[in-house]
Amino acid sequence: MKVGGAVVEDTAALERFLARFTAIDGKKVLVHGGGRLATDVASRIGIKTTMVQGRRITDGATLRVVTMVYGGLVNKGIVAKLQSAGVNAIGLSGADMNIITSKRRPVRGGIDYGFVGDVTRVDGDALARLLMSGITPVIAPLTHDGAGTMLNTNADTIASEVAQALAKTYDVTLTYCFEKAGVLGDPHDNSSVIPVITRDDLTRRIADGSINGGMIPKMENALAAMRGGVNRVIITSADSPDGTGGTEIHND
Amino acid sequence: MKVGGAVVEDTAALERFLARFTAIDGKKVLVHGGGRLATDVASRIGIKTTMVQGRRITDGATLRVVTMVYGGLVNKGIVAKLQSAGVNAIGLSGADMNIITSKRRPVRGGIDYGFVGDVTRVDGDALARLLMSGITPVIAPLTHDGAGTMLNTNADTIASEVAQALAKTYDVTLTYCFEKAGVLGDPHDNSSVIPVITRDDLTRRIADGSINGGMIPKMENALAAMRGGVNRVIITSADSPDGTGGTEIHND
Repeated sequence: MKVGGAVVEDTAALERFLARFTAIDGKKVLVHGGGRLATDVASRIGIKTTMVQGRRITDGATLRVVTMVYGGLVNKGIVAKLQSAGVNAIGLSGADMNIITSKRRPVRGGIDYGFVGDVTRVDGDALARLLMSGITPVIAPLTHDGAGTMLNTNADTIASEVAQALAKTYDVTLTYCFEKAGVLGDPHDNSSVIPVITRDDLTRRIADGSINGGMIPKMENALAAMRGGVNRVIITSADSPDGTGGTEIHND
Repeated sequence: MKVGGAVVEDTAALERFLARFTAIDGKKVLVHGGGRLATDVASRIGIKTTMVQGRRITDGATLRVVTMVYGGLVNKGIVAKLQSAGVNAIGLSGADMNIITSKRRPVRGGIDYGFVGDVTRVDGDALARLLMSGITPVIAPLTHDGAGTMLNTNADTIASEVAQALAKTYDVTLTYCFEKAGVLGDPHDNSSVIPVITRDDLTRRIADGSINGGMIPKMENALAAMRGGVNRVIITSADSPDGTGGTEIHND
């Protein structure tokens, strides 16, 4: 399950989400964002945030900020709250137990994203061992290059990659939880949730502009998860993480 | 092994220390400080740091800073560097796997330390399971109250408490590594290391002022570890974590 930055930065929304996450049966992994808080902390430190195509340009100073905010502030806050609810959570970045390695993204089309990593490997076995011990991993959107450097990595992508790695062992449902009710036919109308989206629907909706902006990479991560053997992918409200009322992604 | 904030904030000194830590045989746990970096980040955010008797007054804003700096910036930086050296490290706060719980320190003598926790329990078994799986825990000086709140906890104390918890299962050496060569007879002369200090020596040296300031709580944590069954306690330079040239603490 992935929960986005808009929920993470809203204390009441996060507490509601975590109560619902706690109530879900079965083994589970939580991946969280935190971009809005990172932008806020960066701004208070006097570091300007630059976004290109919805992705953060991560220079050295920004890397320090996201490592602090994602790996410390957000991650430990969630872990402490889950522990208080009786969930034996453990907070992890990709460096911890070497669970997610990545490669620094090369400069393409003149865009240098800086310390941003594209996932190269997820250690699903290490995550499975934690799950089998009754532990609930809480993963921050940080990976490492194996050479001593942390890298900033999109949380939607991490959720998709982790789900694919676990799908080798488990039946996996990947649920993207965010502040909207699902994928909307009309971005301004929260009641226009599309119950099921196929690959063809997506192509058409990207072409006609009804799916746009940050939803496009999210949908691509969702489709990658289906191709990678994940049983079910849902995009839904953080207030209904069981998927009720959300959008189901089909790969056909 | 505990490494202090002055080493942690000095990139070159930290890398030297981590290379030496990596070379040490046997199962090991690293506890780190980071207070100076926290003070620096707090100041850049515009939060004033107040210290009383060497301890940080931790209001809500300061708690967010130490959670970011200790749990994120410092902890993940160390874990990534250890991974690059082939040490399968995992970064932990007390909330992670519920390894260290604490109780918020009550107001005493008119001093309210705020979100500061005194350790109530260390789960030595959980740490032992990690160690037996070939994993090296890297512990940030953060604990939790079990009710959803992180608490700031002195790293020297955490090191002593963790060593005592592990001493129930293992032969344990507790090594405090810092920027000086050991406990000094003359605080201004780095060649005046006292090779062995007993409880009586300590009482006398506190009375005559040759041991003072932050060394007093460090020594008290060292003595508590000896009383708690730790086999050997050493205070030494981060450049010689095997203890050569440092001070050994005896409890007699």
